[in-house]
Amino acid sequence: MNMAKFRAVIEYDGTSYHGWQLQPSVPTVQGEVERALERILGRPTRVHAAGRTDAGVHASGQVIHFPAEWSHGGERLQKACNSLLPGDITVREVKDASPEFHARYSAVSKTYVYRILNRVVRTSLERLYVWHVPYRLDVGAMQDAASALVGAHDFAAFGLPTDGTPSTVREILEASWLPDSAADVFTFTVRGTGFLRYMVRSLVGTQVMVGRGKIPPEGFRDILRSRDRNRSGPTAPPMGLTLAHVDYRDIATPFE
Amino acid sequence: MNMAKFRAVIEYDGTSYHGWQLQPSVPTVQGEVERALERILGRPTRVHAAGRTDAGVHASGQVIHFPAEWSHGGERLQKACNSLLPGDITVREVKDASPEFHARYSAVSKTYVYRILNRVVRTSLERLYVWHVPYRLDVGAMQDAASALVGAHDFAAFGLPTDGTPSTVREILEASWLPDSAADVFTFTVRGTGFLRYMVRSLVGTQVMVGRGKIPPEGFRDILRSRDRNRSGPTAPPMGLTLAHVDYRDIATPFE
Repeated sequence: MNMAKFRAVIEYDGTSYHGWQLQPSVPTVQGEVERALERILGRPTRVHAAGRTDAGVHASGQVIHFPAEWSHGGERLQKACNSLLPGDITVREVKDASPEFHARYSAVSKTYVYRILNRVVRTSLERLYVWHVPYRLDVGAMQDAASALVGAHDFAAFGLPTDGTPSTVREILEASWLPDSAADVFTFTVRGTGFLRYMVRSLVGTQVMVGRGKIPPEGFRDILRSRDRNRSGPTAPPMGLTLAHVDYRDIATPFE
Repeated sequence: MNMAKFRAVIEYDGTSYHGWQLQPSVPTVQGEVERALERILGRPTRVHAAGRTDAGVHASGQVIHFPAEWSHGGERLQKACNSLLPGDITVREVKDASPEFHARYSAVSKTYVYRILNRVVRTSLERLYVWHVPYRLDVGAMQDAASALVGAHDFAAFGLPTDGTPSTVREILEASWLPDSAADVFTFTVRGTGFLRYMVRSLVGTQVMVGRGKIPPEGFRDILRSRDRNRSGPTAPPMGLTLAHVDYRDIATPFE
């Protein structure tokens, strides 16, 4: 039997994990997925993800690839994984991948969503999946700030470079705030070709300062232009953030 | 200072609790709320709820009443409670209540919602708040069954009598299934003047048998008429159920 390459879409609740990336002695999502695959495939199996998520961050459409000697098809591999994985990690799909497919380097864009609950009283039922902001927010001003993000910019004010890429220039394709019908949940959707570390949470924390009137929208543009990490607002907490999906040139987006 | 009566609206995530009602040696929502009130008020304080919820069942609009010597207003009492309660229990509102107000006996109706995730693959991000049903469901047939529930009926086939009330007759004012826009979450909303123990979950479990084609809608009506608990379907699991709100004659519904 020959070694083949597979790609999988993974959903996880990051609450109990120290992020995606494997670390010794602490639970990580990558560690759980690799342990399940090792039990199924009978050998240590390294998986590569489209994006590393930090501790407490969720994913509904993380994409990974890995090599496997497996001739029973993606659906059976998916079921075997889900029967071994804890309930807070779900393999949504497994498909054959071409030999040149790489979950990270083949990705055309990634989409993150960040959810804010904007009411006076905190929430118990959504506490693991939203950031509770009790102050009145001007979403129009936040939307104005978001529109400044679209395009290629040096985002040094909003994050740290990732491994192997000293550049802090990234291209944002879409950035917008959407209030829900009851108007107490605001969802920030941002799609880009790449992101700095902490970038989405730093953008959200700074835009919330705009929404509170602490920073004028024009001041937000100044911070972006400054490339000075000391000028951006606080980093928003992880529980509001979800890696929603990853797009590839030749593969239809599996989940919205 | 005189003893006054207060009413409060409570939201909780029931995942970690053995239900609402106080029990020795296990965590209950009532136990947590009474412990917070005792610390604030300086004396043991008994609270009475509109409805007891079973282990693992949630609430977004549970209503309670309790006596208190407290002259600082409802809002400060609410804040004091939330600063002491764990994050999975939130007091959404505290108001003065009239001396004759009783959270349970003054209630005109209670509304429960039950959420089903209907797709092949399980969920990690919603696993604590939906019942995952991987079979194809005919929501039209389930809606037909739901419509048979409206009115006063003997619901002995779907639950057990509650304390002090041997009758199993209850009046349902509204019962309907609503699919979400993506059509993989179905929400059952049921409003009634009272409910038997396990009634909503038994109704949901039996309607799912209708949706799967195992019981024809007319068969559902037969089960209702039979008053025979052995003929109803399985009791749906608790995590999909939420006590959404409680209506009183003279008080506007605080939360939808």
